Amino acid sequence: MTNEPTGLPPRSGLAGHWSLDPGVVFLNHGSFGACPIRVLETQNEFRARLEAEPVRFFIRELPELLDTARLKLAAFLRADPEGLAFVANATTGVNTALAAIPLAACDEILVTDHGYAACRNAVEVAARRTGARVVEVPLPFPLAAPERVTEAVVRGLSQHTRAAVVDHVTSPTGLVFPINEIAAELENRGVILIVDGAHAPGMIDLDLTGIGAPFYTGNCHKWMCAPKGAAFLAVRDDWRARTHPLVTSHGAAAPLVDRSRFRLEFDWTGTGDPTPWLTVPSAVETVGALDPGGWPGVRSRNRRLALEAMAHLCSVLGFQQPCPDGMIGSLAAIPLPPRTDDNRRSNPDIDPLQERLFRDFSIEVPVTLWSVPPRRALRISAHLYNAIEEFRYLGVGLAASACG
Amino acid sequence: MTNEPTGLPPRSGLAGHWSLDPGVVFLNHGSFGACPIRVLETQNEFRARLEAEPVRFFIRELPELLDTARLKLAAFLRADPEGLAFVANATTGVNTALAAIPLAACDEILVTDHGYAACRNAVEVAARRTGARVVEVPLPFPLAAPERVTEAVVRGLSQHTRAAVVDHVTSPTGLVFPINEIAAELENRGVILIVDGAHAPGMIDLDLTGIGAPFYTGNCHKWMCAPKGAAFLAVRDDWRARTHPLVTSHGAAAPLVDRSRFRLEFDWTGTGDPTPWLTVPSAVETVGALDPGGWPGVRSRNRRLALEAMAHLCSVLGFQQPCPDGMIGSLAAIPLPPRTDDNRRSNPDIDPLQERLFRDFSIEVPVTLWSVPPRRALRISAHLYNAIEEFRYLGVGLAASACG
Repeated sequence: MTNEPTGLPPRSGLAGHWSLDPGVVFLNHGSFGACPIRVLETQNEFRARLEAEPVRFFIRELPELLDTARLKLAAFLRADPEGLAFVANATTGVNTALAAIPLAACDEILVTDHGYAACRNAVEVAARRTGARVVEVPLPFPLAAPERVTEAVVRGLSQHTRAAVVDHVTSPTGLVFPINEIAAELENRGVILIVDGAHAPGMIDLDLTGIGAPFYTGNCHKWMCAPKGAAFLAVRDDWRARTHPLVTSHGAAAPLVDRSRFRLEFDWTGTGDPTPWLTVPSAVETVGALDPGGWPGVRSRNRRLALEAMAHLCSVLGFQQPCPDGMIGSLAAIPLPPRTDDNRRSNPDIDPLQERLFRDFSIEVPVTLWSVPPRRALRISAHLYNAIEEFRYLGVGLAASACG
Repeated sequence: MTNEPTGLPPRSGLAGHWSLDPGVVFLNHGSFGACPIRVLETQNEFRARLEAEPVRFFIRELPELLDTARLKLAAFLRADPEGLAFVANATTGVNTALAAIPLAACDEILVTDHGYAACRNAVEVAARRTGARVVEVPLPFPLAAPERVTEAVVRGLSQHTRAAVVDHVTSPTGLVFPINEIAAELENRGVILIVDGAHAPGMIDLDLTGIGAPFYTGNCHKWMCAPKGAAFLAVRDDWRARTHPLVTSHGAAAPLVDRSRFRLEFDWTGTGDPTPWLTVPSAVETVGALDPGGWPGVRSRNRRLALEAMAHLCSVLGFQQPCPDGMIGSLAAIPLPPRTDDNRRSNPDIDPLQERLFRDFSIEVPVTLWSVPPRRALRISAHLYNAIEEFRYLGVGLAASACG
């Protein structure tokens, strides 16, 4: 256990591997992730190398460095490296995939009401641009079984459904969706699936080739603990020729020598800082080494803690657990009573309960909103630096705060 | 003077402010810039703050930090902060502006043959998407006077010209274009101007409000010496409502409280590393403090060195200076004989002369290509860390190498 400022609960013995402020009980890995000190040091080494000779770095060294990072990531995701593009974040991945899909005026794009608000906006913009229509499938929460999700998605299809954007792990409600089954159902019906796997890498044992979706995007900076700005879009081979980055640069016209057009275009979208991408292998190695069981051990440790924390908080709040254990990874959402003062899906204001927990208890934990009228939940995250004592302390904070 | 490895010429006394490899004669600031140690340290402080509590940083602190950085940048550029969006690079700026302009099948987009190849690709893609036509204006080089550029651009217009993408400082040929005059001519004729000012900030005393173009994009990571990934797109007030980032995220639907839709959309395009943008004020202060004359002193020192270096190299190579002094900032291109083995506009291979200078003389200086069939130049850059001795050494290297 690491010593904490007076009054705060102990974190796990692994917390010292992160530079997280010990004065905050950090139960929100989900929003932006958190990067271990050693991974940040590796990134700093890449940055120092870049700054020592920017031209050598970008022109002579970067293509091979990107290939190395991509191979390591592809192995971690069980994905085809040829279709793996680095992007800044999963939102960019969803936008990029939407731009690749030809949509016409009578087409429908299916989404669920547990989808991420930013990506929902991207779907709305794509629909407005093309005249397509967004069809939102409502899902129950609490949710009795993963099959309910697949059934609801299939029921939402029509002969006009052209594409679907479905989460692998939902952002507001922390549910692991049965993505293999959903992908198979949509594939059978000729619906183009974009999987928003923002939270999946590092939380779920991924097999992107097995899922087989045309598009799968995910963040490396969340549960894999890479630096901010590390994410990917995996594109199935039959979609690569028509998938382009949102920024056109040199790769669009460069001659094809030893690299595909896909790779030439995605690997260079103008000068930027590529070190988050290059540091992905360090995140895979560093975090995987923190548990004797490697990444399977990391995932199962985080999941056990999330389940234990959810059970405890449900009991404190007098709620039933809102989903079966099998739908939980390392995020979990506990339903809260709705707010009566606001009915927006995406509320930029911090929820009063979230603000109170931060101000009075130094707890960073989000209150999430989804659906219209908005439903509301407290979403907890468990990563290696967390300990059950922190969630018990959250329970104390919740008991002391009205939940409204 | 800073001591250098045996055989290499001395750099300027200011070179110690950069972490550039002293084993390389770095005469290519233009391609990717170079960031002073102190600016990188400031960026590291922002990163440490981010990693100590990512949620506090992104949710509670970032909007105000971005406002502060934007105000400082707006003052430096004499731009309206309300229309100033941070982007990763000028290529992204050009792509974003192109997406905002409604183009139809009979429209023409004017470009010059000295334009940046990546942005030319973006124009081609925008034209292909909409059925518009790209009209390339050829410019002479050597070039007798800036008026020749304005005249050529105006001659290239037709009743179908809808938009123009024109550089402020050309990438392959290092020429400062008379952008105020060009902007006025295009404005009078109702042509929508996108200025690619990739190289201008920090090289030219900018007054974006005075230029008055609908769109002006520039990099902060080049001549301002900010970290990689710091750039801007300045959008005139009448174009802001229809200009959106290429990535749709939360801002598209967030309620307007104290921020415009433009700002909400551009300030958040998914999780990434915003520290290059936040570090722009440090670059303005740090580099401006390295010359007793502040930024005007920095600019004129760099320009004097570029002019002296160009004069010296032209004399070594037996060429006339290819343009009047008034068209030189801190980049300069010396024409070379064309290559006979290749006729591509954008050649990803490193030119044999560039390779020889790097391998045999440890000189980093680019050979640029433009137009079709490709013309060829040696492009030098002068920044505070450079000394005239480095360019004399380049002259020795050139004399020893065939220029073909």
